[in-house]
This record gives sequence, C-alpha cells and structure tokens, in this order.
Amino acid sequence: MQHFTSIQDLGPEGVARILNLAEAWKRSSPGKHLADKLLGMVFFNPSLRTRASFEAVMARGGGSAVVLEVGNGVWKLEDRDGVVMDGDRAEHVKEAVPVLSRYVDALAVRTFAEGKDDAADHLDPVMSAFRTYATVPVISMESAREHPCQGLADLLTVQETFQKTKGLPVTLTWAPHVKPLPKAVPNSFLLTAAAAGCHVRVAHPKGFELRPEVRAEAEAFAAATGGSVEYTNDQNAALEGSAVLYAKAWGPATDGPGGEVRQESWMPGAAQMDLLDKDGIFLHCLPTRRNLEVADAILDGPRSRVVDEAENRFHVQRALLHQLIGTKG
Amino acid sequence: MQHFTSIQDLGPEGVARILNLAEAWKRSSPGKHLADKLLGMVFFNPSLRTRASFEAVMARGGGSAVVLEVGNGVWKLEDRDGVVMDGDRAEHVKEAVPVLSRYVDALAVRTFAEGKDDAADHLDPVMSAFRTYATVPVISMESAREHPCQGLADLLTVQETFQKTKGLPVTLTWAPHVKPLPKAVPNSFLLTAAAAGCHVRVAHPKGFELRPEVRAEAEAFAAATGGSVEYTNDQNAALEGSAVLYAKAWGPATDGPGGEVRQESWMPGAAQMDLLDKDGIFLHCLPTRRNLEVADAILDGPRSRVVDEAENRFHVQRALLHQLIGTKG
Amino acid sequence: MQHFTSIQDLGPEGVARILNLAEAWKRSSPGKHLADKLLGMVFFNPSLRTRASFEAVMARGGGSAVVLEVGNGVWKLEDRDGVVMDGDRAEHVKEAVPVLSRYVDALAVRTFAEGKDDAADHLDPVMSAFRTYATVPVISMESAREHPCQGLADLLTVQETFQKTKGLPVTLTWAPHVKPLPKAVPNSFLLTAAAAGCHVRVAHPKGFELRPEVRAEAEAFAAATGGSVEYTNDQNAALEGSAVLYAKAWGPATDGPGGEVRQESWMPGAAQMDLLDKDGIFLHCLPTRRNLEVADAILDGPRSRVVDEAENRFHVQRALLHQLIGTKG
Repeated sequence: MQHFTSIQDLGPEGVARILNLAEAWKRSSPGKHLADKLLGMVFFNPSLRTRASFEAVMARGGGSAVVLEVGNGVWKLEDRDGVVMDGDRAEHVKEAVPVLSRYVDALAVRTFAEGKDDAADHLDPVMSAFRTYATVPVISMESAREHPCQGLADLLTVQETFQKTKGLPVTLTWAPHVKPLPKAVPNSFLLTAAAAGCHVRVAHPKGFELRPEVRAEAEAFAAATGGSVEYTNDQNAALEGSAVLYAKAWGPATDGPGGEVRQESWMPGAAQMDLLDKDGIFLHCLPTRRNLEVADAILDGPRSRVVDEAENRFHVQRALLHQLIGTKG
Repeated sequence: MQHFTSIQDLGPEGVARILNLAEAWKRSSPGKHLADKLLGMVFFNPSLRTRASFEAVMARGGGSAVVLEVGNGVWKLEDRDGVVMDGDRAEHVKEAVPVLSRYVDALAVRTFAEGKDDAADHLDPVMSAFRTYATVPVISMESAREHPCQGLADLLTVQETFQKTKGLPVTLTWAPHVKPLPKAVPNSFLLTAAAAGCHVRVAHPKGFELRPEVRAEAEAFAAATGGSVEYTNDQNAALEGSAVLYAKAWGPATDGPGGEVRQESWMPGAAQMDLLDKDGIFLHCLPTRRNLEVADAILDGPRSRVVDEAENRFHVQRALLHQLIGTKG
Repeated sequence: MQHFTSIQDLGPEGVARILNLAEAWKRSSPGKHLADKLLGMVFFNPSLRTRASFEAVMARGGGSAVVLEVGNGVWKLEDRDGVVMDGDRAEHVKEAVPVLSRYVDALAVRTFAEGKDDAADHLDPVMSAFRTYATVPVISMESAREHPCQGLADLLTVQETFQKTKGLPVTLTWAPHVKPLPKAVPNSFLLTAAAAGCHVRVAHPKGFELRPEVRAEAEAFAAATGGSVEYTNDQNAALEGSAVLYAKAWGPATDGPGGEVRQESWMPGAAQMDLLDKDGIFLHCLPTRRNLEVADAILDGPRSRVVDEAENRFHVQRALLHQLIGTKG
C-alpha cells in the first residue's frame, strides 16, 4: 500500500518526479486520467482552498469525490487501543477507516494540531491511524506535522520561476499573527525545499524554533541532494540575495504560552523584498492577514506569486493522485 | 469578462433571450452542454433550493460543482482596502477570489443583506468584490441587492402561462412575516417584469417603499420595453384585473426598527385571488410561511404556480450558465 | 410511484430479489446502470457511512448526488396541516418536497426519532410526508421506525456467509450503551431476517421490548416464509447454536426515562461467541463503542464480519436504486 502523508514518503527522487509531472501536465492536460475513480475526503478541520483544489482534480480527471466532515459536530474518532469507549468518541478508527476504504479508491485526510502538546501533535495520531487501518492509499490534506501538498505547490512555483531548484537560495521567514498557528506549513516548505536541493535559510525570533526531528529530516534530505539548511534570528541577513521570500506565521517552540506572536518588526514589507536577488519572488500558502503578517506592498506588488502558488496545489495534487490511483499513462 | 449578478447585466434583450432559451430547452433538453465544466458555488449564507437547482444544472449538463460554505463557521472574507487584518476576517477577497478562479470555470455566489444598514447593503460589497477580482464569470445566487435568477424564473412562469409578458398587468404585493426580510426578491421581480415589458403594480403598506435606485432602474427598463411601473398602498386596487398575484414579505424602507412586519390584513387569501383576471395565477419565490404570509386556500388551490416557478429556477439557470460557460450551440 | 422506506415495501419476495441482485453485482459490477441519474440526499440528521455509501453508489453507477442538510442550522420543515407558521419551521413539506422532486430523479431521506414520544416517533411523520408529497421515488436512509438498507446489508452478509437465509437461526441481542438509542436498526434486522425466512431469536432485558406493531409485522413475514420469531430475556440461551450474534444497543420500551441502558452484563464478549454454532459470525451496524457495547475480543477476532457488513450497504443500495431509477437491465 502506497501512502502520501509526508515528504518522506516521496523522498528527493519522488519530489522531483511529482514536480516534473505537474509542470508537464500544467502545459498539457492529461484528460480523464482518474476516470471512474472516487476519492473520499475526510475533514477533521474545515477547509476551502484544499477542498476546492482536490475536488477540482477529481472532476477534471473524470472522477469524483465524497466529502465527509468528521469534526463538524458529527462524532469524533477514538484512536487509542483497548479503552472503554464511554466518552464523546463514538467510533473507533479500527472500524471507521477500513469501512470508508471499502467505498472509495483513496482517502484524503485533513487534521490539525490540537495545539495543547507540541510533542503529542508531532506524532500525528489521526494520520497514523489512517495509514495503519486504511486498505486504500491515504493522502494528506494537512496534518499536525506536515502539509506536504503545500510544500510541493511551493516548490513547483519555485521551479517554474527559476527553471531549477537545486542550489537555489530560498528563505523561510517567521511572521507575526494574532494567534499561534500550527507548524505544518513551515515544516513542509523546509522539508520540500531541502528535498529539492535548495539552500534553505530559516529566520525566526528566538523561541520559535522548529522541532528537532523535522530539522534532522531536512538536513538528511539536504545531504542527499547537495542542498543545505541554516537557521538564524536575523531576518534581513537571511534574505540577502535570496531567490524566495516565503513568509509564514507559526507558534512558539515550547508548549504553553511561549513567545509573543505579534512581533510587528518581523512583518515583511517592501524593504525586505529589496534584499532579495533582483528576480526574487514572494510566496505564502494563504490565507494571510494583510498588514499584520505581510504588507499590502508585497501582495499587491509585481513579485508576489501567491495566486500561482495556490493554483499549483491543483497541479501537484493531480500528479500525486495519478501516482496513487491513476488509470492512464 | 461577462458576469451575471443583476438584471442590468442582461438588459431587456438579454432577459428575453434567456427566457426563450429556457422555454425551448424545457421542452427539449440540450444534453451535455456543460461537459467537463466545473462550477464553484460559494455560500456566505445557507441554501437548499438554490443549491439543489444549481447542482442539478451542472450534473444534467455533464459538468460538476464544488460547494464552498464560507459563512458556516469557517472564516470570513475581508473586502476593505488597506486595513490591518487583526479581526475575525482571516482572508482578503484580493487573494480568495483570484485563487478560487484558478480551480473552476465560473463562480456562483450567495450573500445576503446584513440588515443593519439598508444603504450599505444596497452597495452589495461582497458581490462587487467577486466581480472585481474574479478571473472567471460570476453568477449571483442572490445578493443583498438582487436575486436575478429568481426574477427570471418568475417571468418564465408568466411567459409559459400567458404566452407573452409584454403589456401584461402583474402585481407584486407586500405580505406579512415574523421578521423583516431582505428586498432582493421583490427588487428582482420588479426589475425583471419591467425588463420583460409588463405593467407592474407594486402594493405595500406605507413605510415599505423599495429603494429609489431600484425603482429608477425599473422605470428605465419599462420605458425601453413599453411596460410601466406604478406604486400604491391599496392592495385590492392593485390586484383588480391583474394576471399575477406575486406575494412576498420584505422589511421596512428605513434603517432601524421601521414599520410593523406582522400586518395581518395584508396576507393574501381567496378574496384577493378573486380580484385577478379569470386566468390569473399566484406566484411566490418560496419558502413561505402558510397562513401568516399566504393563506392555505391559495397555495392548495388550482391557480398556484409556485412549484412550477421553483422548477423554473433550474431552467433559467441552465440557460444562464450556458451563456456564460456553455460548450455547445 | 414506487417508494422504499420500509421492508414492507419489498416484502419477502422483494427482499430475496434485492439480496440476489446485490450478491450477483458484488461479483460482477453492472457498470453505468445509473447513467445521468441524480439523487437528492436530504439529511435531517448527520451521517458519514450512509452518505459515503450512497454517494459511492451514484458515482460508481455513472450518476451523481446532491447533498442537502436540512437539520444543520438551516431551517426546519413543517408537516402539520392548517397551522399558522409563525414558529421556527420556515417551510412546509407541501412545498419543499414537490419542489425538490422537480430537480432530481429520486429522494433519499434520513431522519431520526425525536426520542420524546415513542408512539409518535413510530408514526414516522417526516418520512410519511415525503412519501405523500414526492413526485419521484423516496428511499429511506434511516428513519424513526426503520433503517431498511441496514437490514438488507445485514442479511446479505448472512446470505454470503451461509449460502442461505431460510431456516437459519440468528440472534439479535440488546447491548449496553451510554444513552438510549433509537430502535430503527433492531427493528430492521428483525423484519428483514423474518422476511428472509430466518429463525430469529431476540434477547433483551425486561423493559426493552420492541414495539408490538413491529413484532406483529415480523411474525407475518415469518409466517409467509417458514421462519419464526421468539423473544427471551436470557441472552445465553438465545445464542446457543445460533449462526449469528447481532449486537445492538437500543432504548427502553416505555417513554420517559425507562430501563437502565448501562447493564454491563449484557455486553457480548468471547464467551458469548463460544455459544454460537462453530461457523457463527458477529454482526453490528456500526458505529459501536468498544468495551462498552461490544468487547475488543469479538471485534478484533476472526468471526467479526462488521466491515463486510458495512461494505454491503453499498451493494444493497446499488440494487435498490437500480430497481427505483435504474437505466439498464
């Protein structure tokens, strides 16, 4: 059974293969490559962009999707072994996941970090349970640990713009927000860029370090691809001559209240764009809060690629679903 | 870019063209005229009839639809320029609308009046933002100002029944309700009937005047088509010899508490139907509250056309979507 | 107009016909037998398994489905005649059901018992209204009285396992839960097994009797098929030599607080499985609360057929929808 819930599932070669297929099919549509296929989309957390882009992939490919909203007041799934189920979790993953597997050709799953215990979130219990009990391929639509389709869409945008990813300096910078956000998106940009051979620079205030397991995995990818990863608390230094400014808010490294998430001096604006290489571009996964996380001057300026980047969610997901359940080629 | 969010987008000629196509295709289905097309349906407010009829159009035509519920506890869209987005609106229309445009072939949007400021509602900020930022056609599934698909369905029912619309006397009458309702439906019946050349009579209690901008637009349509528009506070006089009794509750003209919405003497019953021309029919957009807004005697009687009228939502929307994104003919 | 909202709608011959078609098509898929058909799915109560399995039937068969969630904060439907609709029920079934009938080829409806008045629930007012006012076939996705698709899926699992249903001893046993549950599932297993000619044994604590109308209907089926129905308060006696242990929690027979639903001695475990015939199997409709309603030892053991049983929802619903609106064969 092949699953795709992390960049590790693809590795550097797999990342390159998906990016190349996505880029080729963006120029020339593959037609009904998912004819008669049915995707089960299981949402433990709400979504608009992810839902629209995955449903579009299935419809454009000749298949269809069933959307199941688990978290929306219906019932919760139990994933612990051996417990007496007398609380609010009315069904066990040991039943729910095999049953859903009988109705569809693949299961796409979205679940977020609970935000109470960073280490526990990192173990990704819901996504792990789907991998364990599904009898069809499982694809992540974002989990507590990673948002790998976003990472691939990010790198496709880089590859389209610069005709390469290997050896390219790219910068991921922390940005302010009204509340602590999960780390799935920064984790995935870091991991995918490293797997694509970029020289990744990560800038953040003290207290917002990414988890050591993720950093170690990124370093292993970089070692395999000739890329590199470095960390700094100096945003401007990290941007100097870089090809990409990727801005994203995320929560503190430690559990509990942690660092202040509204550090306004970290909001990128025109001055930060000026530090990039002359062809440098701006990326963000969206949604973004204008003038709090990112200045209008960037988003309304000529170097923002955020809409193309969001469109690329469609293209990488099309390639991924083809690899998992495609009927052609 | 062609959009359809108001009767003004069609004008009298466009209204006639849609009604004629809808009537022709009601007799003889066009088959897969929307083959492989994908409609994004964005709901800021809930819906059943509108959702079912638009999804049916896409499915019957060989295409499909993605339903996105924005208002349902997910996040709200910011539409103001230059603000610091630190409130509850987590994404700007400047990002959300172009991004959704990348996944689908057209965007259908439903948003209601906020009901706090009649003049502000009338400017229809959300629908305007979709028109400004979408890169695919936008179609209204009802907004603060108009419900143009309903207006077209109303007039298709009139045209089917009387084999004409020009010169026909039709009456829109205010009716009681438990709460003040938006004016989109009465506005659209008035505008579409005027654009179709009817002699439109509008009856309502004092204090429930429709907005001057809408009345001026209706008068311009009437002037162009040989129709006419007149207003009265005498319901029975407005019904005398008319071909149509269109009943609908709406809120007071002025902002704030305004007029009393439960004026029971305004509820149409059998006596009001007797004032019509002998072939006169009853219309209402549905849902309606029986025996509060309209008497059982009308709805259960032989002259009600409300179910046909609701079915006609399908037929006019099919013609509209064909004009916007059709692949055949 | 043919509807399917109870086992009585099929009768013993109809049950056999559906089971046989479902079993045949499980071995050899019928292809696009629902080409271009559109199913309206109306949920007054939430669902995952039912929604996924019905949508899968339509998609696999070449058709599609529109999902309408009535109960989810939108508005409620009035089903009483002649009332002044000034409460929270904003639309009457007399309008809603005929209108929905105009957009789709069949209506699938889910509604639960209100749980306040057992006798009133048993009259199934919402499902009855759909049968009365729909102009297309109505199919039950579970109502206050029955869950007939579940009953058919249960018996298909029995028939597949034992190559027969007639004359087979099968046992339905009450099981504990955290709260009183509706009786639709036990009613339907009883009715379908009796209609399939099984010797049905029903075991439950005193105070949890099924309704007399349902028991009378089951006895009439048994009389027609050579089956039988008996009731006992001795769980172990009911299981001795039986081919099936069907466990299910349900609420007390009397209205109001009634009997204690957490009687732990009634939870089936390994010891109960040992009482069955050596080839005996375990069934449950799911979801189930492990170690409260059913022990891990059963669900994780080799004789549980609950995942196959859930899969069979797809197969029987495919056969039913084919009978109602199929385009082939």
